[in-house]
Amino acid sequence: MLVIGIAGGSGSGKSTIARRLIEEFGDRVTVMRHDDYYKAHHDMTYEERTKINYDCPEAFDTELMAEHMRLLREGKAIDCPVYDYKIHDRSDKVRRVEPNDVLVIDGILVLAEKPLREQMDIKIFVDTDADVRIIRRIIRDVKERKRTLDSVVTQYLGTVKPMHEMYVEPSKKFADIIIPEGGHNIVALEMIEHRVNRELGITEASKHQSEK
Amino acid sequence: MLVIGIAGGSGSGKSTIARRLIEEFGDRVTVMRHDDYYKAHHDMTYEERTKINYDCPEAFDTELMAEHMRLLREGKAIDCPVYDYKIHDRSDKVRRVEPNDVLVIDGILVLAEKPLREQMDIKIFVDTDADVRIIRRIIRDVKERKRTLDSVVTQYLGTVKPMHEMYVEPSKKFADIIIPEGGHNIVALEMIEHRVNRELGITEASKHQSEK
Repeated sequence: MLVIGIAGGSGSGKSTIARRLIEEFGDRVTVMRHDDYYKAHHDMTYEERTKINYDCPEAFDTELMAEHMRLLREGKAIDCPVYDYKIHDRSDKVRRVEPNDVLVIDGILVLAEKPLREQMDIKIFVDTDADVRIIRRIIRDVKERKRTLDSVVTQYLGTVKPMHEMYVEPSKKFADIIIPEGGHNIVALEMIEHRVNRELGITEASKHQSEK
Repeated sequence: MLVIGIAGGSGSGKSTIARRLIEEFGDRVTVMRHDDYYKAHHDMTYEERTKINYDCPEAFDTELMAEHMRLLREGKAIDCPVYDYKIHDRSDKVRRVEPNDVLVIDGILVLAEKPLREQMDIKIFVDTDADVRIIRRIIRDVKERKRTLDSVVTQYLGTVKPMHEMYVEPSKKFADIIIPEGGHNIVALEMIEHRVNRELGITEASKHQSEK
């Protein structure tokens, strides 16, 4: 199993890279998102849960995710928690995840967390300017998630930006490669795809064969 | 022909990457160094030449290097100038360079210069902390080149550092991938080598075959 970690700030384009790998390699790639492992807070009221800082390491059940990575790498299936963003809490559902050839670990803090980082074969940090990242976040949250501009900006300046500077940006140090501008960087994407191809034992010749 | 540009500050480890590619691919790789294209200053005295700023874009005959890249890419041989560091001037010698499968373009400013940059297939920036870079430079210049510590530090603070901040660091923007810590980054080196392998049409199978 090849384990690829993809970190980078909110709006950096890291999920686009994960998506590209799925488009390219289909069901031979499994993506695990750190966000799926947001801690359960059944003991809190909805109001309390909306006030949690979701951009700091403590927001995540990283221990459980690291354990799940270990199990998958040992060839065992896991039950990935399913987070319910509507109620800001972990749901009662789980998602069965089987071991696979390639495992992508996606999240702003996946390189910052040693228990995750030390299980990765390739550590990628997607580096995108802060102004470009906030523009993407505003567009996503206001247009797609119907949030107000004020609430997006308040959250960004209140937790996203300070946590980025404190935890995400310094974790760039742990990267094997840093990719400017995420999913639009064709040269870098191709290099990652070649690396995965090699792991999957797909040569160019056999690839062209199967396309015929 | 695959053209790979490798930029990064003095002491970043970019030449180690070029060396690794030569070790791996032997005579199928040709390295062109921007430093070989330092401008000729036959009109100046030795004293005047020692005072030149060798870390700014104007120090290089980039136009000639770009023209040589074009010729090599068209399959034509070129006569690369040979710089004489002892007299701080271009020598009368030239080095015949034949077209090859892989061309590596090495230099602190090769991504900063559009005429070079636009001819590259893969643009790599080697990113190493400034303190690590100056340590390497001091060790190299004092131990290997027998220069005084004072002269190394004076040159570093006087031109190397300000030029780095003005031209080298901003050129990171043009990179397809940024590699932390140059030649010691095995994961990144392997990704580059796989990309070159693919260009050279070497599959893992045929490689193992030829090693037998």
